[in-house]
Amino acid sequence: MSSHPFDNALRLTPDFGVKADQFLGVTSPDWWNMVGPFGGISAAIALNAVMAHPSRLGDPVALTVNFASALTQGAFRAVASPVRTNRSTQHWVLELRQADANGMETVVLTGTAITAVRRDTWSANDMPMPEVAPPDAVARIIPPSEAVVWIQRYDMRPVTGPLPSTWDGGASSDDPQLASLTQLWIRDDPPRPLDFASLTAMADVFFPRIWLRRSVLVPVGTVSLTVYFHAGVEQLAESGTGYLLGQARGQAFRNGFFDQAGLLWSANGTLLATTHQLVYYKE
Amino acid sequence: MSSHPFDNALRLTPDFGVKADQFLGVTSPDWWNMVGPFGGISAAIALNAVMAHPSRLGDPVALTVNFASALTQGAFRAVASPVRTNRSTQHWVLELRQADANGMETVVLTGTAITAVRRDTWSANDMPMPEVAPPDAVARIIPPSEAVVWIQRYDMRPVTGPLPSTWDGGASSDDPQLASLTQLWIRDDPPRPLDFASLTAMADVFFPRIWLRRSVLVPVGTVSLTVYFHAGVEQLAESGTGYLLGQARGQAFRNGFFDQAGLLWSANGTLLATTHQLVYYKE
Repeated sequence: MSSHPFDNALRLTPDFGVKADQFLGVTSPDWWNMVGPFGGISAAIALNAVMAHPSRLGDPVALTVNFASALTQGAFRAVASPVRTNRSTQHWVLELRQADANGMETVVLTGTAITAVRRDTWSANDMPMPEVAPPDAVARIIPPSEAVVWIQRYDMRPVTGPLPSTWDGGASSDDPQLASLTQLWIRDDPPRPLDFASLTAMADVFFPRIWLRRSVLVPVGTVSLTVYFHAGVEQLAESGTGYLLGQARGQAFRNGFFDQAGLLWSANGTLLATTHQLVYYKE
Repeated sequence: MSSHPFDNALRLTPDFGVKADQFLGVTSPDWWNMVGPFGGISAAIALNAVMAHPSRLGDPVALTVNFASALTQGAFRAVASPVRTNRSTQHWVLELRQADANGMETVVLTGTAITAVRRDTWSANDMPMPEVAPPDAVARIIPPSEAVVWIQRYDMRPVTGPLPSTWDGGASSDDPQLASLTQLWIRDDPPRPLDFASLTAMADVFFPRIWLRRSVLVPVGTVSLTVYFHAGVEQLAESGTGYLLGQARGQAFRNGFFDQAGLLWSANGTLLATTHQLVYYKE
C-alpha cells in the first residue's frame, strides 16, 4: 500500500452497510491549510468517491465542488451517487458530511461530477502552452509559513506572478492582462504519477488572485471549484511524474467574490485540464 | 402577469404539499432547440427554483447545472434544496425531474448553486470589454432554421466569429487566439429587464465552438454549464433592457468533449458574469 501523503489523504473505506454509495474517511494533517484542509484535497477526495464506486462508467470529464464549511480534523463521510446512467455518460451527485459539535451530520461540501467513456475524435488545442523557462531554471517556492502545511506537498516554481514579497498594497501591474496572472511549474513532492485525483488537487494550488492583485493579505476562501478533464488515462500516463505548467488569472473582483480561470498543461504542451473557481474575500 | 416568453417558460408552481423545496413547471415550445429545450432556459428554470424558494438568503453568486438528458415536452418537477445556510452564504442542491415512458420520475438535470449576501468591497475588472463596433452598426443574425425556435427569442449581432456561411470543413483561422472566438451583442427579443435568470440563459447562447472551429455541423450537446455572477441587483438594473456583449472561446477539444470559456459585459463595460461549459461532440 502506498505511503504517499496524497494516497493517505484519499483513503476511503466503503460503508455500504449504512447506505449504498457511502464511504468513510479521515482528514490528514499533512494537507492542513490555515482553517481546515487544503480545498484541493477535499475536491480530490470527493472525486475519489466516484473513482472508487463499483458502478462507475468511464472516466471523469467534469467536476464541480462547493465548499459549504471548513472540515474539522477527524472522520468524514463521502457520498457519491450515480443518479443517471446513459449509454456513454454518467451523472453523479456528491457530498462530504461531518458530525457537528452535537454529533449531527452536516453537509460540508456539495458537488456534481460527470464520467464518460471517451472515444477517438478530431482534436485541437486552442490554448497553446506559453513559452516559459524550464522548471530547472526557475526557483522553487519556499513555504512562507510552517502553519500552512499543504504547500510543502508540492514543488512549485513560479515563472510569472509569484506571491508578493512585500504586503504594501501596491498593484502588481498596471497591465490588466498581467495584474492577476500567475504561471508556475508544479509537481507532487515526493513525485507521484499523475491521476484524475491529483490533477484535481493541482487545479486548486494557485494562491488567491486578490493577494497578487493588491499586495494585501485579505481573508479569503474558495466557495466553488470546477474542473474539466481534457486528459484521458493515456495523457495522464504520458505526463507521469513530470511537472505540469499551471496558469491562473482573476477576471472580476466585486462585492466580496472574485473568480479565477485556470489551465494546466503537461510539460510537452498537452492541455490536461481547464479549471475555474469563485473565491470569497473580505474587505 | 407578464406575457414575455421568458417569464412564461420560467413559471413555477409550488408543490410543497408533496415535499418541501419542490415546484412544478411545463416546458415551453417557444424555447425549443433541435432536441428538447434550449439548455439556457433549463438552467434558468433551475435557478428560478432557488429564486422562488421562501428560505433563500441573498442573491446567486455561482450556479452549475449538468444536462443528464434532453427534456421532453410537458410537465417537469424542479427541486431546489438549501442544504447548508451559513451567516452570509447558502448552498443549494438542484434537480429537474420528468416522468419517463413508464411514468417513473427520472433525473434530467442535476446542479448546485450558491447564494450570498453581497457587501461593498474593493473591486476590479481584469477582463476589460473588447473595443468593438456598437450594436446598431452590426447586422442581426437571421435564424438559419425555423426548427431551432429559441434563436428567435434573442437579438444577436456577431462582431467576431459568426456562424460559418459554408460548411466546407475549412478552419476558421490559422491563429489559435481567433480560431474558436465569437464576440456578439445580445438582448432579449422583445427586450426585457435583465435579471439573474435571463443572464444565466444568455451564458448559453453561443453556438457550438466546434462548428466555428471546423466548419462542420457535427452533433453536439452541452453536458455541464457553470455561471459566476459578478453582477448584483444594482448592476442588473443599470444594464436594464440594453444589449450585453458576450464573448466565447473554445480551449481544448479532445475525445468527444470540448470546453468553452465565456464572458458577459453590460454595454457600459461592467463584467456581469463569467461562464464555462463542457460540450459533447461526435466525430
